[in-house]
Amino acid sequence: MKLPLALEELISRFGRLPGIGPKTAQRLAFYMISASADYVNDFANKVREAKEKVRFCQECFGVSEGETCSICGDEKRRKNLICVVERSTDVVALEAVGGFEGRYHVLGGLINPLDHIGPEDIKIEELVGRLQKLGDEEIEIILALNPTMEGEATTLYIKKKLESPKSPKSFKVTRIGNGLPMGADLGFADQATLSRAMEGRREV
Amino acid sequence: MKLPLALEELISRFGRLPGIGPKTAQRLAFYMISASADYVNDFANKVREAKEKVRFCQECFGVSEGETCSICGDEKRRKNLICVVERSTDVVALEAVGGFEGRYHVLGGLINPLDHIGPEDIKIEELVGRLQKLGDEEIEIILALNPTMEGEATTLYIKKKLESPKSPKSFKVTRIGNGLPMGADLGFADQATLSRAMEGRREV
Repeated sequence: MKLPLALEELISRFGRLPGIGPKTAQRLAFYMISASADYVNDFANKVREAKEKVRFCQECFGVSEGETCSICGDEKRRKNLICVVERSTDVVALEAVGGFEGRYHVLGGLINPLDHIGPEDIKIEELVGRLQKLGDEEIEIILALNPTMEGEATTLYIKKKLESPKSPKSFKVTRIGNGLPMGADLGFADQATLSRAMEGRREV
Repeated sequence: MKLPLALEELISRFGRLPGIGPKTAQRLAFYMISASADYVNDFANKVREAKEKVRFCQECFGVSEGETCSICGDEKRRKNLICVVERSTDVVALEAVGGFEGRYHVLGGLINPLDHIGPEDIKIEELVGRLQKLGDEEIEIILALNPTMEGEATTLYIKKKLESPKSPKSFKVTRIGNGLPMGADLGFADQATLSRAMEGRREV
């Protein structure tokens, strides 16, 4: 007994999605063939439409509906304050907080030698190019990458790149604070977090 | 900052799939828009094709490419030995073991009052109808449902239904064995499993 070919193929397509194992792929495929034709057509259409309609902003590489995203198109946002993030969803998270007057730069990934992702695979050159086009005002780059091995490697790489003596400009490169998250318990915090929290101490 | 509408819609569609939470839905949607157009078209096509091409066997309600599945179409398979399972994938699992000469009946679910799934929502009437069409030979029904609350309820419901005095025929109704799975450790087994294992003891 084999499953029908079209079903096997759908299971394999679901199984190729990131983080979807074989059992989940099977469950999703069976759910699809058991759902109404309208539901399935709508799903397939939304997949195609998202791919067709969603673009990446030519300035910051975040998701956008047009050539330039709404933030990069907003002249009120400061051009000399750029927050570098890994993904477009990070932009959404930071914008939800509100108050940031600068712009963003979405790398689209982090340096990760184990997955063969080098500096040339993410939008670092594009960041450098973007900074060169700016005027002579003071420029601050805030690195807001995850405090993981990959985030640290990427943070250090970008810092070195921007502060190299060959760079025609000088930048202020900062990183977002690390330490205990709000509501956390000091007794349960890991050593790396505590060490960063101590380093990052500020006057009350 | 809001995500583009087409992307929001795709995230919502992924989020409606069973077992996919909001974070996973976001990850899958971003994966889709970052993938190649060919990949995305292929994915959307496979979803549609599976829905269009995969049917349910009119005899056993398992997945099938035609009106009748390959097992129900096989005259060598015994008609008077029917194994009742919850899903088509259970058929695949049992067929992979091999050796079973009978046929199957796929209920398409289990009785679950909490989810408002009653006996009329799964293929129990169809099972009864199928059995009535058989001749006067001895008929064995093997209930191979998961040993969960829902599986137990469904097993008992079907047994009662088939063995009711109103039933024009008499059937031998069996269930698959419960007990310690191979390779398990008795010390770690739960009480319900141990109790079933003791009940289901057999001569060596």
